[in-house]
Amino acid sequence: MVERPAFRNAMARLAAGVNIITTDGPAGRSGFTATAVCSVTDDPPTVLVCMNKGSRAYPVFTGNGVLCVNVLREGHADLSAAFAAGNRDLDACFAGAAWRTLSTGAAALEDAAVALDCKVVSVTEVGTHGIFMCEVLAVSTAADPGALIWLDRNYLRVGPGGAKVA
Amino acid sequence: MVERPAFRNAMARLAAGVNIITTDGPAGRSGFTATAVCSVTDDPPTVLVCMNKGSRAYPVFTGNGVLCVNVLREGHADLSAAFAAGNRDLDACFAGAAWRTLSTGAAALEDAAVALDCKVVSVTEVGTHGIFMCEVLAVSTAADPGALIWLDRNYLRVGPGGAKVA
Repeated sequence: MVERPAFRNAMARLAAGVNIITTDGPAGRSGFTATAVCSVTDDPPTVLVCMNKGSRAYPVFTGNGVLCVNVLREGHADLSAAFAAGNRDLDACFAGAAWRTLSTGAAALEDAAVALDCKVVSVTEVGTHGIFMCEVLAVSTAADPGALIWLDRNYLRVGPGGAKVA
Repeated sequence: MVERPAFRNAMARLAAGVNIITTDGPAGRSGFTATAVCSVTDDPPTVLVCMNKGSRAYPVFTGNGVLCVNVLREGHADLSAAFAAGNRDLDACFAGAAWRTLSTGAAALEDAAVALDCKVVSVTEVGTHGIFMCEVLAVSTAADPGALIWLDRNYLRVGPGGAKVA
């Protein structure tokens, strides 16, 4: 097994889109920034989200059983940083952008690259994290496909103006 | 639940790093291109990889129980496309780059942004796909953190020359 610092440095090399994951419901409203999100299958339409079990937000998400994956665009670096802070003030975070709701009542970012409103189908715990399997109930998509990327501990952007390799 | 075309269009908005996943062992050698890879936890160091159960490669990966995640750099678009083809000739694919082995015997790409050599700890099936939980046994890291990105059905690159948003 690799040591933790070597693993963390290796993970910094995994370029990833940046997302704000929100929830709302009987357990309350919450949100956090996540890169560990990926598509699983289109039958049924499913994405997964990894979340630290030790975070204050964790029981809120498991309690509500719904979440919205808001895929960020290049202009969202400040919003991403706000929702990533460990001591974040959620009311102030949500006040920093315009939101609506789709199907579940979780907050969908109005100008997200895409918002994926989901029902949590299962949570599998692996070490310090829970893996949420999420069936996508509704989507809303922005016109511009630009994206905010997290790579090597920096925000970067790609999009229509980005250099295509192929 | 959203319809499949809407889900696929939404997934195109999830910017993701591009990886070639390899395996070798008693079940044979194999490899495929994947974007559905993410970090899960650093305790123990774990990543996950999603793989289509219907692919020819699937039983090779489950049979060997080991894999290497090769995180691609901006120059690897052709290699990515070769390993993504449904009718790929694996010998020709592997002949298109220089490889070595780390801990498990799976092929590690010599100039990968990072190669993560892993033991498969569990496979969870969700719909059409299997989710491989992989404990990272060894890593090798390139000097240059540049990355190959898949977004909106195109290859894009980000790296030291990329525009930082913040």
